[in-house]
Amino acid sequence: MNHFLKISQLSRQQIESLVQRSLEFKQQRNHPSYSQHTVANLFYENSTRTRVSFEMAAHHLSMSVINLDLQNSSESKGEAIEDTIRTLAAMGIKYFVLRHKQEGLQQQLANNIGDAVHIINAGDGTHAHPSQAILDMTTIIEQKPHLDKLKIAVLGNIKHSRVANSFQNICSKLGVGELVLVAPELWQPHTLKYGRITASLVDGLTDADVVICLRVQRERLLEEEHLDLESYRHNYALTQQSLAYAKPDAMVMHPGPMNRGVEIDSDVADGAQSFILDQVTNGVYARMAILDALIKHGS
Amino acid sequence: MNHFLKISQLSRQQIESLVQRSLEFKQQRNHPSYSQHTVANLFYENSTRTRVSFEMAAHHLSMSVINLDLQNSSESKGEAIEDTIRTLAAMGIKYFVLRHKQEGLQQQLANNIGDAVHIINAGDGTHAHPSQAILDMTTIIEQKPHLDKLKIAVLGNIKHSRVANSFQNICSKLGVGELVLVAPELWQPHTLKYGRITASLVDGLTDADVVICLRVQRERLLEEEHLDLESYRHNYALTQQSLAYAKPDAMVMHPGPMNRGVEIDSDVADGAQSFILDQVTNGVYARMAILDALIKHGS
Amino acid sequence: MNHFLKISQLSRQQIESLVQRSLEFKQQRNHPSYSQHTVANLFYENSTRTRVSFEMAAHHLSMSVINLDLQNSSESKGEAIEDTIRTLAAMGIKYFVLRHKQEGLQQQLANNIGDAVHIINAGDGTHAHPSQAILDMTTIIEQKPHLDKLKIAVLGNIKHSRVANSFQNICSKLGVGELVLVAPELWQPHTLKYGRITASLVDGLTDADVVICLRVQRERLLEEEHLDLESYRHNYALTQQSLAYAKPDAMVMHPGPMNRGVEIDSDVADGAQSFILDQVTNGVYARMAILDALIKHGS
Repeated sequence: MNHFLKISQLSRQQIESLVQRSLEFKQQRNHPSYSQHTVANLFYENSTRTRVSFEMAAHHLSMSVINLDLQNSSESKGEAIEDTIRTLAAMGIKYFVLRHKQEGLQQQLANNIGDAVHIINAGDGTHAHPSQAILDMTTIIEQKPHLDKLKIAVLGNIKHSRVANSFQNICSKLGVGELVLVAPELWQPHTLKYGRITASLVDGLTDADVVICLRVQRERLLEEEHLDLESYRHNYALTQQSLAYAKPDAMVMHPGPMNRGVEIDSDVADGAQSFILDQVTNGVYARMAILDALIKHGS
Repeated sequence: MNHFLKISQLSRQQIESLVQRSLEFKQQRNHPSYSQHTVANLFYENSTRTRVSFEMAAHHLSMSVINLDLQNSSESKGEAIEDTIRTLAAMGIKYFVLRHKQEGLQQQLANNIGDAVHIINAGDGTHAHPSQAILDMTTIIEQKPHLDKLKIAVLGNIKHSRVANSFQNICSKLGVGELVLVAPELWQPHTLKYGRITASLVDGLTDADVVICLRVQRERLLEEEHLDLESYRHNYALTQQSLAYAKPDAMVMHPGPMNRGVEIDSDVADGAQSFILDQVTNGVYARMAILDALIKHGS
Repeated sequence: MNHFLKISQLSRQQIESLVQRSLEFKQQRNHPSYSQHTVANLFYENSTRTRVSFEMAAHHLSMSVINLDLQNSSESKGEAIEDTIRTLAAMGIKYFVLRHKQEGLQQQLANNIGDAVHIINAGDGTHAHPSQAILDMTTIIEQKPHLDKLKIAVLGNIKHSRVANSFQNICSKLGVGELVLVAPELWQPHTLKYGRITASLVDGLTDADVVICLRVQRERLLEEEHLDLESYRHNYALTQQSLAYAKPDAMVMHPGPMNRGVEIDSDVADGAQSFILDQVTNGVYARMAILDALIKHGS
């Protein structure tokens, strides 16, 4: 593993190893010290939680962190970003966490830049968010390790969600028993990587072991696609009523940040079945596992 | 002390202990090492000096620091900020330094979030700035320890100053002999926490042991309140002439940043009686004392 | 050396010592530990590479770093910046890396603030960029140590380039054999610090040992000076053809960031003769040498 770009490039064994390592890091008090290494956070799109999660992961591994807030950067083209990475690499930085709205940019950079540099995809447009998939799966396996026996429902804008994309791929790799994606027709993609899709919340949630609720992007919802927010809430929100279709011990998950009272109700988000904060906690350990795997590969 | 929210919640003993600890940290070369702990600086309002002061304090205590510049954040509501803090707490961060324009927000967050997280108020609107009060009092006690014998004057926009509010409370707690607040009528609050108020600079400054000059918010002055800047300067600026009313060894203080030539003249700000940079120096030690007290409480 | 402001203030011996120290730091695995010291990066103009280069240098020396992004700062006047530095100094910060569009600001601040604080000029308007000159010369000396025998060409907007200014001064101090500055008449300064100027690319590049290509500021080019970009490229771009005038082993350098396909072609920038990434690498060591010299002076 020289880069961490998307789930579909990883073997089942690599994924299982990352999940396992995440859970090990969670148990340990002492972590490896990689104080000679530096992580650069290159965020061309806004993010608090993912950026800080990688920063905390780096701290736990005694790595230095360079934060570059590039939201307003004039570097719009891949060529300029490639030069930025080459420049930072020439300064001695080898690990780059990169978020950008352009799909496949991290892959393109990895192809061009070569193996001395390690690129971690922290989200590229609507395409992939693979570290989220690792942390999601770590959170599920921690509670319900027999994936082949699980029914998992993902609820929301499946068509435009990098979280949903990477999650389909990881379910495919690990052989999840049943994956059901639930979305209104407007938000159903043409093709799936894994599982089946339904417009029926009842169909999707019935007897589910895990329900993952995606964030509604209000702006997209209202401006671009003219989907009525009230009607979305009525048909697809995760509420006590809709959650009742799932198994009594079903896990509730959300990648955050939540729109409370839109796609999820507060009594569900903060309820006994919620593992939303466990996801956040595991996110730090998952990113440690990713960094650890790249460092070990590189050394 | 689980949170550090406002002076009025602290006992006299707690305040004295923070001041004492600040002065001890100033003497020591070696400080406690809290390298397992992380401070998050959440600044929803601009600040260079307060943010860096907490960052330096954390460095001296070997703590990691996560800076979040949230001035342009879309998180305007307390609910979203609460989720941000819960999320960061789930990543392992326990200490949050928070500045926000909304009065009482830190208190509200502390009430909702519970005791596993420690919130430090770095300024909430015009309400409170308690770490400033600790550093102000540390600076005074360092020079003039017999507070019951002192006359302290605070000069400026008392009505809208969180610095003045917190300072009134700390004077009340510690039994300062005489506190006089000096402001034009427009800037006089309806009620005081401690001391008396006057519109007369001569009355306020005569025989004062300490003169604290507040920053004039030019924007507020000019746009909202139509107070004439020239007339303010003429009646209330701290100049060599006006300082002459105070005792010959009166301390001059200012929370910064100064408008030189507006509320204070440079020859006063940089003169022999000025303790303005001592305030800044003590600010780092005061914030160390606050962090230290919260960490000890939490462990 | 109490401050690092411009090349013309340094002796030949001081410059040689900085270059030598840079090359030593490059060889060493263990560096001095200055963990009790803090560097503040005060950037009133945008910069990724220079800021990160100083940050990496500080990390290598175990120094803490405080980053202040002041691009949108309301502090436009030197007086306010001076107060900011005094304030940060009162917090215990002694090393200030400062970039600002106002020429001579760092010098003015150094004059006013005194010797307890150390100011490093990271670029002031079109005037000076002395750490760039140190890293440029380090890169040249590393490859071609006999400066008196070299012909060096600098190509681009000589008139408005702080890089060219500082480079002329360092060539003068170290006795470079021949320095030729190549620019269209519009970009030729009235006076030179060293070398000669020509509008002829052929004249400038013929038999050169080193060719330094400057960045074209497109905005200035197009809006202010009405120089035609196509005609500039045709006459002055560093291409395989134009580079052929130089010696076969001529070094190609560029301070970055490059406009590929404008002032330099990609096959030159990425070719065997390019030392552009070596410059970046040496930049970290040069800044370590500068910090090291200031710390040793101060202690």
